[in-house]
Amino acid sequence: MYAMLIARFKMFPEVKEKGMAAIPRLVAFTSEHSHFSVKKGAAALGIGTDSVILIRCDERGKMIPSDLERRIVEAKQKGFVPFLVSATAGTTVYGAFDPLIAIADICKKYKIWMHVDGAWGGGLLMSRKHKWKLNGVERANSVTWNPHKMMGVPLQCSALLVREEGLMQSCNQMHASYLFQQDKHYDLSYDTGDKALQCGRHVDVFKLWLMWRAKGTTGFEAQIDKCLELAEYLYNKIKNREGYEMVFDGKPQHTNVCFWYIPPSLRGVEDSEERTSRLMKVAPVIKARMMEYGTTMVSYQPLGDKVNFFRMVISNPAATHQDIDFLIDEIERLGQDL
Amino acid sequence: MYAMLIARFKMFPEVKEKGMAAIPRLVAFTSEHSHFSVKKGAAALGIGTDSVILIRCDERGKMIPSDLERRIVEAKQKGFVPFLVSATAGTTVYGAFDPLIAIADICKKYKIWMHVDGAWGGGLLMSRKHKWKLNGVERANSVTWNPHKMMGVPLQCSALLVREEGLMQSCNQMHASYLFQQDKHYDLSYDTGDKALQCGRHVDVFKLWLMWRAKGTTGFEAQIDKCLELAEYLYNKIKNREGYEMVFDGKPQHTNVCFWYIPPSLRGVEDSEERTSRLMKVAPVIKARMMEYGTTMVSYQPLGDKVNFFRMVISNPAATHQDIDFLIDEIERLGQDL
Repeated sequence: MYAMLIARFKMFPEVKEKGMAAIPRLVAFTSEHSHFSVKKGAAALGIGTDSVILIRCDERGKMIPSDLERRIVEAKQKGFVPFLVSATAGTTVYGAFDPLIAIADICKKYKIWMHVDGAWGGGLLMSRKHKWKLNGVERANSVTWNPHKMMGVPLQCSALLVREEGLMQSCNQMHASYLFQQDKHYDLSYDTGDKALQCGRHVDVFKLWLMWRAKGTTGFEAQIDKCLELAEYLYNKIKNREGYEMVFDGKPQHTNVCFWYIPPSLRGVEDSEERTSRLMKVAPVIKARMMEYGTTMVSYQPLGDKVNFFRMVISNPAATHQDIDFLIDEIERLGQDL
Repeated sequence: MYAMLIARFKMFPEVKEKGMAAIPRLVAFTSEHSHFSVKKGAAALGIGTDSVILIRCDERGKMIPSDLERRIVEAKQKGFVPFLVSATAGTTVYGAFDPLIAIADICKKYKIWMHVDGAWGGGLLMSRKHKWKLNGVERANSVTWNPHKMMGVPLQCSALLVREEGLMQSCNQMHASYLFQQDKHYDLSYDTGDKALQCGRHVDVFKLWLMWRAKGTTGFEAQIDKCLELAEYLYNKIKNREGYEMVFDGKPQHTNVCFWYIPPSLRGVEDSEERTSRLMKVAPVIKARMMEYGTTMVSYQPLGDKVNFFRMVISNPAATHQDIDFLIDEIERLGQDL
């Protein structure tokens, strides 16, 4: 939402005083796998969720650039003003990374603000082994990065990085002279109040700074590499195991391992409405039992036409191979009678 | 901003999907002494700061109800839709309490959402001695209350209270089934995710809960009464003291004590441009010296046509009469040569 606000002010500074009524109808683009906060932002900012155009994804959950370009052209033909593309680096469910280089080319061609939602995947930038997955992010106008997710900073610690210097100030300042005095005896550039959307707020970045000082970049890198290695270990264990079906093919790019557990009674049953409606109920029951036993907890969700599947996300580098082995045993123990 | 967002969705639910283009031009009202966040909200939400109409205040910084009504009628005549009045309970600079009962009557008459910004003054509701200052707040549609201000909860802990049940959900929900599953095995009313504007966030209310359990309502009351008593002590000490001028007459209603320190060289000097321009520089120099010596720190600001004055705000109940005495001595020590 904040990136959308900044992009709108940059493109139409008059919206600050005059409101949305003074500017053309804006449209934003994001993938069908992106986070719901894009729509939420559009609702809050008065742009409207109907003006968020969802771009198709490939089977791995990555935005299809040709569909993006097609929809931009279509919107322009209708007289709308495309102003923002929100690409995702690490989607919530699949952990997919949108093709940022191709998207940057399209944004450049049509002069559209390129935002990268790296809330979940941004942490991979700390890893020499994995940061290529975000290639192209350096061309973005703005990037969201939540160190409270993959980097383990205690909730909450969210950053919005904006390329253009001075833009946060021109968007946010309200010239409240009673709070932001200009006749102080020290360097006013240290005053952040008039550059931010909020007023009084917690210094969340201090937690990140402290951890960074303690661990160093290589410390964060080791954490992240470990989580990705654990996810790969889980993927390798279940990809061909009896009773498991992967939601998408191939090794996950992030730590999201998405799978169905197929209880014995459903194995070998042909695809049918009955099988689907029974499979839908498996993950919720296993999760409920996990919570009752208190042994483990794994999220599940449906997505599009795919019924409830488990999404195991690893963001705790203290987890071990034995924990993953336990998880698999536990799912099988709790789900064998379903 | 959040209250404004809720009020707009309540009045025009279609704005969520269709954006501001689909609805009439809205206007909001707040006093000229209110916090700049009202304008900031209007800018962010696409309403525009020009649509925030500033209502005149009396000499104590309280909104004048007759001016509010006049401006509402005027806006309607121009074809605008008045949708929100943001009254302030405890303004930033003067600590003024708007006349909430008269404002509630006007809001009722014109069917306008009544918001009370009690960010600073809300804490007085914990005090049997002082809560009358917020009489009428019980008629508001929404109230902002920051326990991190007057109640001493560590930053940040901000509450938006809304009267209508279910409204937060209908405003905020985006039906993100991949996050907010409806087939869980426990009571879904405990899930707050789909009722809030933000997604992942810190459980700030826990700090308040913990303090409330430890101190009780009477503990908070004692804290608040103490702060107000200290403010009154300061006011009584300086109101007739040589070298001090109060910014507004009478006992402050909150802990904001606003005053000029007049150094010896300016005493008895007739009101003139030269005196004003010299007085303007007094508070900044004293504050800079306070910071250099590291002994104390008091905010100053101009307001309207009033040049830089000190605003001493007491929110630490551990302060003592001796601290107040020291403060006065320190201002005089640091300012005597100016």
